[in-house]
Amino acid sequence: MYRDRLRMPALWSKVMSPEQAATLFRDGMVVGMSGFTRAGDAKEVPVALAERAATDPLKITLLTGASLGNDIDRILSDAGVIARRMPFQVDPGLRRRINNGEVMFIDQHLSETVEMLRSRQLGPIDLAVIEATAITEEGHIVPTTSVGNSASFAILAERIIIEINLNHPAALEGLHDIYIPTYRPHRDPIPVVSARSRIGMTAIPIDPAKIAAIVITQKNDSTARIDPPDDDTRAIAGHLSDLFLHEVKKGRMGLTLQPMQSGIGAIANAVLTGFVDSPFHGLTMYSEVLQDSTFELFDAGKLDFASGCSITVSGAWYDRAILGIESYKPQLILRPQEISNHPEVIRRLGVIAINTALECDIYGNVNSTHVNGTHMMNGIGGSGDFARNAHMAIFVTKSLAKGGAISSIVPMVPHVDHNEHDVDVIVTECGLADLRGLAPRERAECVIGNCAHPSYREALLDYYRAAVRRGGQTPHLLEEAFAWHVRARETGSMRLPIGGLVSTTP
Amino acid sequence: MYRDRLRMPALWSKVMSPEQAATLFRDGMVVGMSGFTRAGDAKEVPVALAERAATDPLKITLLTGASLGNDIDRILSDAGVIARRMPFQVDPGLRRRINNGEVMFIDQHLSETVEMLRSRQLGPIDLAVIEATAITEEGHIVPTTSVGNSASFAILAERIIIEINLNHPAALEGLHDIYIPTYRPHRDPIPVVSARSRIGMTAIPIDPAKIAAIVITQKNDSTARIDPPDDDTRAIAGHLSDLFLHEVKKGRMGLTLQPMQSGIGAIANAVLTGFVDSPFHGLTMYSEVLQDSTFELFDAGKLDFASGCSITVSGAWYDRAILGIESYKPQLILRPQEISNHPEVIRRLGVIAINTALECDIYGNVNSTHVNGTHMMNGIGGSGDFARNAHMAIFVTKSLAKGGAISSIVPMVPHVDHNEHDVDVIVTECGLADLRGLAPRERAECVIGNCAHPSYREALLDYYRAAVRRGGQTPHLLEEAFAWHVRARETGSMRLPIGGLVSTTP
Repeated sequence: MYRDRLRMPALWSKVMSPEQAATLFRDGMVVGMSGFTRAGDAKEVPVALAERAATDPLKITLLTGASLGNDIDRILSDAGVIARRMPFQVDPGLRRRINNGEVMFIDQHLSETVEMLRSRQLGPIDLAVIEATAITEEGHIVPTTSVGNSASFAILAERIIIEINLNHPAALEGLHDIYIPTYRPHRDPIPVVSARSRIGMTAIPIDPAKIAAIVITQKNDSTARIDPPDDDTRAIAGHLSDLFLHEVKKGRMGLTLQPMQSGIGAIANAVLTGFVDSPFHGLTMYSEVLQDSTFELFDAGKLDFASGCSITVSGAWYDRAILGIESYKPQLILRPQEISNHPEVIRRLGVIAINTALECDIYGNVNSTHVNGTHMMNGIGGSGDFARNAHMAIFVTKSLAKGGAISSIVPMVPHVDHNEHDVDVIVTECGLADLRGLAPRERAECVIGNCAHPSYREALLDYYRAAVRRGGQTPHLLEEAFAWHVRARETGSMRLPIGGLVSTTP
Repeated sequence: MYRDRLRMPALWSKVMSPEQAATLFRDGMVVGMSGFTRAGDAKEVPVALAERAATDPLKITLLTGASLGNDIDRILSDAGVIARRMPFQVDPGLRRRINNGEVMFIDQHLSETVEMLRSRQLGPIDLAVIEATAITEEGHIVPTTSVGNSASFAILAERIIIEINLNHPAALEGLHDIYIPTYRPHRDPIPVVSARSRIGMTAIPIDPAKIAAIVITQKNDSTARIDPPDDDTRAIAGHLSDLFLHEVKKGRMGLTLQPMQSGIGAIANAVLTGFVDSPFHGLTMYSEVLQDSTFELFDAGKLDFASGCSITVSGAWYDRAILGIESYKPQLILRPQEISNHPEVIRRLGVIAINTALECDIYGNVNSTHVNGTHMMNGIGGSGDFARNAHMAIFVTKSLAKGGAISSIVPMVPHVDHNEHDVDVIVTECGLADLRGLAPRERAECVIGNCAHPSYREALLDYYRAAVRRGGQTPHLLEEAFAWHVRARETGSMRLPIGGLVSTTP
């Protein structure tokens, strides 16, 4: 029944059970697995590996595209299999082990992992485990709902295990555009000149002799849990729409805007959904993850084309977007994350990048990753790839967290993922700070006045005014810069029971 | 006598005195001036402008390539002419006004300024003041010792003042390669595929009708003050040479290495000079400023080709490098800083980027700009353009400053210009920390063990161990993270009179 998916007869003999495939792992191996934000991950072999580890302990370095679904990261880390992990994760169980120091987590820009593998600054990859829609007549791999780092993992790996997942529609074939940059010192320009550019092959070209095992699976991707838009996210979308209209009025762009990128999560998804009822049309996306909003915008006739490296939708959209992929295919491309997130292409296309901040400081520095400056949440993901090279780098966040106990606008962020040089616009439900061309003191007044929640605004101004009395390009009171975070760590809240939040003596 | 330098006779009537040209400025104008790290700045018109301002006050927004020589930034800021300044400066007088809040300084990645001007997110440019070697038969501008942002300033400006500087050798003509990226949404790849690639024109193409004034000058560029190598910088160069030899042994590169970039200043210059006595040869540079070391390496037969956006040498090299430019010309290109620093090209070529840090923290975050986190030194310059996109991003610093009162390795940097995601290697005279593929806890042990001065090592370990007891991906004690900087601000030294530097209670 799967032979239309395994079109090279010489490989039929490689079909085996997940348990048999799991015997191919060795202690200390560097393993590259497919999977990007719950899409296109290998689903059976990792579970079999975890089961094997119960009686035959082993540890590996696990590389992926981004996060995995189907609890794979939890199952593998609970089994003690993961010694090192890169470049991204979102699993609560793995996160706990990372923050305990049990798992070494290397938090990387998503465009850089395979660049470092290719130049042998990381690796080598011993084994790749790749989910496939099919294996072609030539033994090449047709990916599924994500490309992520799968192409380079497969090309660079010593041996490859392939999971052919029959639940994915055969119509996924043709969706992908596999392009690997040529090797230095003679690298050619990457010829992507629009979101629509097709520059590569529809399958991953490998030597089929490297295929060590093929496992047939029938299991869906985990769907995304996306909160519906609320008043705050609608307000954020409204402020952004106003900004883009302002840009159009100034003649800086037309109503088709410029290619858009949006980070994962509820706020970014809601922002894009907000475009359904906007005057913008003929939009394109040059993004990383394509979420529900991509398909809503297609259906609303607002979006002309979307390029990404994975499709990650909620349960409500799964049947329509994934099983019904055929109807969206003419408007979609999935690329390797190295290309979807490549500085060269992002800068060339002039991408408008919208990503979520954990918190921002008054000068526009952004923390995307570390709770209280120390504990990893997920990872920087592609936000740095996009923000650093975008036409306009926008960060969105609600102004409050934990019922108001935490302000997302703080005097100083205790971890910097994106610094003031790379942050153009900050948006909360309270308002929008357009920081382009502003010096730090001007940025502070704009961020506090427009983005901070009114209940924290006075305290931020107190801090800022006291800092300014000491002078400097970027005034700060270093002895008080983290007072809010220290208080939050000790009491659960950034607020003082009574009185001002910070002293105002210089 | 200057008519061979002003080859379009229709423009002869535009020749005037600096004082006459200075009347073209209006209060509130946005002015783009040539000049990049003391090379190729306009020298007479800015002084005449400052003189005019004494009786006829006016304020402008001043954009340049990078820093200016001939005390122009001091003279203009003393005259109260500069209201806003971007993207870089090094002048002590201007710096004081910036830190006082009198001048708004926008500290930008050097590749981004003209990108924002072209997309009209900054600007428009009312007036450009450009130093030229010559004006061609077509009325096009031949730059001098830097290109910087001059090409885009001239192309985008409403009107242009040109200073033809007869002190610069006519042989500079032909050295420059002027290429402006095409406009979005139809931008082509930038066709630079090696340091040698010539992709543009040797002069800046403008409509000569925009030329409002031509001033003839005869004044040299300010020369660079570069400290000679000392034991520390020699040790840093030695560690780097060992690293590169290691890369060669691992088969990751050959003895020609990959194109090198080096930041300005004594340490970076000394590091490159160190290559004179190394086994490496056939080197190329794809850099920003070409300093003395570039010419030393040419003369030693080590360097095959250098691409930069300015030539800034010390007095000892001025006659040979600048006046004797003819003999180096076949091995040199000067490009717009947008191209010399372009993410697309840096990533494509796989540049090895060596830049100077003010201080680094134990996790590898780098402060390049802000003394004690608040007071601007110079600006981020091109360090972010290069570090973020390099094959290998290296930061160098001496482990101590101010006679040992300040450690350049600190628990947490109070200003982040380059975060851990972008920093591959840190080098001090004590040793080298190769951070590639390491998680933050591993980075900390490596940075403290290899790079910190022995007299601060124990205190850093105390801090780190206490932080680790609290857990986290990137352990910190937020209430103590800046204790060293606070002490330095209050006492002039990071050291405690007696006992440990930080508490060790979690």
